[in-house]
Order: sequence, then structure tokens, then C-alpha cells
Amino acid sequence: MTPREASTALLTDQYELTMIDAALQSGTAHRECVFELFGRRLPGGRRYGVVAGVGRALEELRDFRFGDAELEFLREREVVSAPTLDWLADYRFSGTIRGYREGELYFPNSPLLEVRASFAEGVVLETLLLSIYNYDSAVATAASRMVSVADGRPIAEMGSRRTGERSAVAAARAAYIAGFTATSNLEAGRTWGVPTMGTAAHSFTLLHDSERDAFRAQVAALGVDTTLLVDTYDVQQGIRNAVEVAGPELGGVRLDSGDLPTLVAEVRRQLDELGNPNTRITVTNDLDEFAIAGLSAVPVDAFGVGTSVVTGSGNVAAGMVYKLVARRGDDGEWVPVAKTSVGKASVGGRKTPVRRRNAQGIATAELIAIDDRVAGDADDRPLFVDLVVDGVVDERWLGAQGVAAAREHRADALRELPLGALRLRSGDPAIPTIFVDGE
Amino acid sequence: MTPREASTALLTDQYELTMIDAALQSGTAHRECVFELFGRRLPGGRRYGVVAGVGRALEELRDFRFGDAELEFLREREVVSAPTLDWLADYRFSGTIRGYREGELYFPNSPLLEVRASFAEGVVLETLLLSIYNYDSAVATAASRMVSVADGRPIAEMGSRRTGERSAVAAARAAYIAGFTATSNLEAGRTWGVPTMGTAAHSFTLLHDSERDAFRAQVAALGVDTTLLVDTYDVQQGIRNAVEVAGPELGGVRLDSGDLPTLVAEVRRQLDELGNPNTRITVTNDLDEFAIAGLSAVPVDAFGVGTSVVTGSGNVAAGMVYKLVARRGDDGEWVPVAKTSVGKASVGGRKTPVRRRNAQGIATAELIAIDDRVAGDADDRPLFVDLVVDGVVDERWLGAQGVAAAREHRADALRELPLGALRLRSGDPAIPTIFVDGE
Repeated sequence: MTPREASTALLTDQYELTMIDAALQSGTAHRECVFELFGRRLPGGRRYGVVAGVGRALEELRDFRFGDAELEFLREREVVSAPTLDWLADYRFSGTIRGYREGELYFPNSPLLEVRASFAEGVVLETLLLSIYNYDSAVATAASRMVSVADGRPIAEMGSRRTGERSAVAAARAAYIAGFTATSNLEAGRTWGVPTMGTAAHSFTLLHDSERDAFRAQVAALGVDTTLLVDTYDVQQGIRNAVEVAGPELGGVRLDSGDLPTLVAEVRRQLDELGNPNTRITVTNDLDEFAIAGLSAVPVDAFGVGTSVVTGSGNVAAGMVYKLVARRGDDGEWVPVAKTSVGKASVGGRKTPVRRRNAQGIATAELIAIDDRVAGDADDRPLFVDLVVDGVVDERWLGAQGVAAAREHRADALRELPLGALRLRSGDPAIPTIFVDGE
Repeated sequence: MTPREASTALLTDQYELTMIDAALQSGTAHRECVFELFGRRLPGGRRYGVVAGVGRALEELRDFRFGDAELEFLREREVVSAPTLDWLADYRFSGTIRGYREGELYFPNSPLLEVRASFAEGVVLETLLLSIYNYDSAVATAASRMVSVADGRPIAEMGSRRTGERSAVAAARAAYIAGFTATSNLEAGRTWGVPTMGTAAHSFTLLHDSERDAFRAQVAALGVDTTLLVDTYDVQQGIRNAVEVAGPELGGVRLDSGDLPTLVAEVRRQLDELGNPNTRITVTNDLDEFAIAGLSAVPVDAFGVGTSVVTGSGNVAAGMVYKLVARRGDDGEWVPVAKTSVGKASVGGRKTPVRRRNAQGIATAELIAIDDRVAGDADDRPLFVDLVVDGVVDERWLGAQGVAAAREHRADALRELPLGALRLRSGDPAIPTIFVDGE
């Protein structure tokens, strides 16, 4: 890694810094503020969203420091004035962040993060937090639908090559949180503890003088339990070769082309006839949640999904925004604030969200109390957890441990939703969002 | 930056390493091979593509090393055998890579990269190269259309918050190569020399007790030549406030909401009436190439584009693949290879591409000669340049210098295309791709 990537602080829009510059000069930079991160709607008419990126955001927040190299760039380009450079040099986030835990489900206007800090300390995190939440949550939201329709069959993420090389790691992590069983991405295995998988590509077969030579080489190295890719030339012949080389204990075959619903049934029949009833069939050809649904009655044993999951299946950014919703006035009282721009109005004030549930434990609404109003009864599930308290990041949400907890939480939270939440067709959110702001 | 990100080597699909493991054991790992990176079609019916990511790929190739931390992970997870770990520990790419230069235009089946190396050395780069090319080229391809319709008016990239935080840097870089004038992303400024811009967001206005207070603070810090965001509350009043505070020398106003075609005309009229004929109007509300085209007759002075450019305007992955196309046989002769999978067949053999041009210098075809066949006349422009020779990266393509050269080259190459290349509507590529493989 080259030194220029030593800090996350410049993964930031310039205007965050020019605002701090102006606010330091006008004396408003230290006003206590509440920023909120939320989405006005669910992307693509989804029934629910899955929060992802929390652990990543907290780790990058810790690395958010303006070191000598960052300051030198800002000085040279004259982005901000000298006093602001001094303020940035000392920057350590000292505020408090509450929010939805990773793996939590969300709905329109769910307040996913509440950042309480001075204006300057809070505003400077906007770009980085949004980049992470928007991408990771888009992937997790798409992935969760695929997991549901896979209906218990293993589903692996293998789309690294279809998204930026660092986003690929985030995507593997987000898909795993949403219930995927494994990833092809090795860095996601190392950094986040995601199980990794993978055997061979078509190039391996083409490298050898014959398909059988290739299969022999693979079985010699990886054992008969490996998965052989059988569609480089002719699938029927490929399966005969695979069974001849690996025998009845062959672990699996992979199909990466063709019309899967008809092809898979034929392959199953052929494998059974050849004496390989336990050889699994994995399919990996341009799958998305709809293609997986179309294979529900077909004897597929496992899925591999690439492009569609790392690109959020048509909605690659979750559309979240980060808004100032309250600031403390000179009299010490909180002042709710909100812009009124056409089509982009937001709801001012600090929020406290709960998931309202009926007596059977099924969610019926996303209830959001504004300011200090209380909405809640015994069945409600509070949605805020502490993420950062007075600048100290809560370790529970970090690393592989945070990922494992998030994966478990997403499964629990999904069981709480009404069944209609699993519909693939675009439409209304599974539960309504209700603001409680009356006296 | 935490130590775990010290190398790019694990930004790789596991099967690249298990293939090496098997090939080392079977003795085929060192066969000399040619891999090719190409796209079977242009995404979204685009008329041409713009190659981006070359300089990034070459820099990450230099950092592609399996250090102790990477090897320890692979050992612990038992991804490959001990001899393969030794081979990986010594890995340095020693092969030769030719390809399209950054900023070059491309068409279906253009051979963007030709990687000549042993199987093991070449295959291990597949995931990383594709991740970079697929994302960066998707962004550059979309961005180039926006630049054309902006028709000389400045256009800034400001979508960092709508893509993964590291992809944001790549997107800013790719958009600049495609002709954007600036970016909001500070890291892209530092690492790649892209000009940066930005002044203030709605939160800055909301922070202050009044819009005028906010404008005063901004002008005090950034000067009257700054751009004021005037749509936090009411646009007409916002403009009156802006002009009162900044006077006739106010640099610009920014509109981030509303129905732009009608709004911009009104704003222009109002500014002129208030005595501010030189105050520029910047618009930034959910623009894409079609929205920009819709503003061609409207007095907009500058555009800011976010989501649509960093997400490739509906095509966020360019669909490129990396295929083994030839290997040297035991007799020393090259053997062209290609899979025949249904719907995914590729063209085997080493390629030499030129852009065929007529006597007026206008491109008429992408001509691709297979193996050692020669296609070419005096007006043809050869498309391959040396990128890596015997493991040594050509410095010309790296850093800010490489970006500047790519930006210039994209403009030159676009002037060479027939006018129809600038059509926004989806359709056929601007020029056909012709393979020359007869005797």
C-alpha cells in the first residue's frame, strides 16, 4: 500500500472542508448539532432494506485523521485557510453516534444514524459515511432477496470482477451479512472472516491438451470432492469426462452457460444414470433473484451470483442522505431544522425509532418519535444502539465478530416481518413508517 | 491504513489460486499463455466505450505481492498447498502486457489488454484487472456522453457519496479522463491531480440563524466569487439574499432542486434584473446525459453530476472478461484456444488491432488481425502500446501524468469518430468490429 492511502480523511467532498472553514470564521462551527443519515425511499420498490456498512464505517472513522500528507495537499491547493488546517490537524471525532445496528432492516425515513457533535466534527464525516452506507446497504438489500428465494440452498457471492476492487471486498461482506454462504473474494475472507470458495475457470481447461487432462489435474490437487466446470466445450461430454476422471464420489459440477431450467434437469438425469446421485450441481450463469426464483423447482444444489449482487440488482446506490436535523440554539434549547427544497423536503428534529410489533411479535410499523416525544409499548423493539460514545467506538460492531453478529441479526429481524415482505415484485414497503410528532 | 490492506494480492478470486495450485502439480503452470481482456458488447447500446483504469491497474500490479500476512491467511485457510505458497511468495509479474492506452475508445471485442506470461503468472491477475477495467471504463463511458452534450460548459463530478468510498476516487479520475472539468473528491485531487471544487451544502445554511447569516459567513471566508446554494428555503428569496450579501460580483448560484428548465430561465432573469448579469448558474439536481441534453437551450453555466456518473448511468459494470486465447504447445508453436459455451463463445488466437480510417482521417472500422496476419494500410492507427515489458511497468502511464495524457487522448480519439458516435439513443456501435483471420 502506498503512503498516500494512509488515511481515510480525504475520501471527502471538498465542500465539507470549505463549510468548516467558513463556520470557524463566523463562529458557528462549534454549535452542537444532530445529523441524521436516512433514505427517503427504498430503492427499486423493495419491500425492506438491510443496513450494512456499519462496522466498516466505524473502522474508517477511527482512521479519519488529517496527517501531514493530507494537510500538505490542502495547504498547497489552498482549499482552506491556515486556522482551519490547524483545526483539521487536531481532528478526532469526539461526539456520539447512535443508530441501527448492522444487519437491521430499514424502511423509508428510518433514521439509520444519529450523529451528535459540533457542526464541524459532524459535517466532515458526511461523504465517507454515505459512500459506505449507500453501497453496502444496496448490496445487502439485493442479496437478502436472493437468499430468501434460494430457500435454504447455499448461495455464494462471486462478483468481485464486476465492481471496483475495494468495493468488491465490501460487497462480499455485505452479501454474507444478508445470508450468502461464502464468497470468492480472498480479502473478504482475511479481513472480515467471510468463508471463501472457488475451484477453477474455463481457462484451466483450455490450458490443458484435453478436458480430461484438466479434470485429472484438478482432482489430483483438490481431491474428488472438488467441483468441476463442465461447459467449456460440450456439457454432456464434459459430464462423462468428469465422472470418468473423478468417479462416483465427485463433489460437484458447475454450469456457467446455457438455458439453466432445462439443462439442469438433463444434467441431473445424466449424473444419476452414470452412478453419481450425490454429485451436486452448482449454477453460476448471470443469476439474479428472479432467475433464482425461476429455478425453484429445478434440482440445483447451489448458486453462485456475480454481477447482480455486487451491483445491487439494478439499484447500486441506496439513495441515502445525511442531513442536519437539529442544532442547539444560543439559549441551549434544541432547534429542529429542515430544508424545504422542492421534492427534497426532510423532517427536522431528533428522532427515536422503534419497530412496533403486534402480540404475535410481527412487525406492524416503523414508529419514529420526534424530539423528546415518547412512542412505545411493551411489544415495541427499540432500534437505536450506541455505536460511538464521546468519540470511543464500541468494539462489538467491529471486525469479523461484528459481521457474524450482523448476519445473525438480519435473519432474526427478517423473521419478524409480515410474509409479504418476501415478495419480489416492486411495491410498497412491508410496513409503513409513522412519525409521532404531535403533543 | 491498517496493515491488512498493505497488498493488492488478495483482491482476487480464490479460484485463481486453486488453479495455480493444480497447474503447478500437473506441470502446466509454466506454459506460456496469452490472456486477453475484452468486452463482447458495449453496455447499454452505447456507440463507443472509453478505456479507463489502465494507470490504476499498472500501479496495483506493482503492489501485487504475497507478503507474510497474505501467505499466513492462505496457509491457515488451506487454500493452496505448501509448494504453491512458496511460488506465491516469490511472485513478481515478469511477463509483457500490451494494450489500448488509457482514454482510447473501444468497441465490441476490442482486445483491450494482451497479457503474455506463464499461465500461473497471467491467470492470477484476472480478478484485479477486471475489477478495475470494468468499473473505471463504465464510468468513463457514461461520463464521455455527458461531456459531449454539455457542449463545452464545465461539468463537475460530485458523486462520491453514491459509490463505495474507494470507487469514488476511481470514478472521479475516470470522469476527468472522459472530459469532466473537476471533482468534489479530495483524494482524487491528491492522488491523480484532478482539479477539485466545492463550496457549501444545505446544512451550512441550516446551521445559521438565517440564510443571510450563512451567505455572509461563506462570502467572508471564500470571497464574493464563491457559489451560493440558494434553494434551501425559497429560491427567489434566496437569490435576493445572495445578491444583497455578495453584491454584483457574486460568482455564482447553485440550484439543487426543482424543475430546472423553467427554474433556470427565471433565475437568470432575476439575476439580470438585480444587476448580476455575470453571476453564473450551476445546476446539480439528479442530472444525467439526457437531463443535460434537455438543458441545452437553457442558460445554465455549469453542471454538477453525481449518482449517474459514478454508477455508469445505468451500466455500472462494463461487462469485460479475461480469457485465455492462446498457449504455446510442446512443439513451441502457438495454439489458439477458445471455449464454445452456449452464448459465451470467444475468438481464440493472439490479436493485433488497428483503427481503420478513411482518407479524411475518420474511423471506419475496428480491424482486428488474428495471430500473425497483417491488416493495415497507411491510414490505419495502431491501437496497442506497451504497458509492461518483461515485468517492468512503463512509467508514462502512471500517476497524474498518465491521467493528463489519457484525458487528452480521449478528446483526440473522439474527434476521429463519425458524427453518429455522439448520438445518445442506444443502438449499434459507431464503427463495426472486423476480424481478419483468413489466409
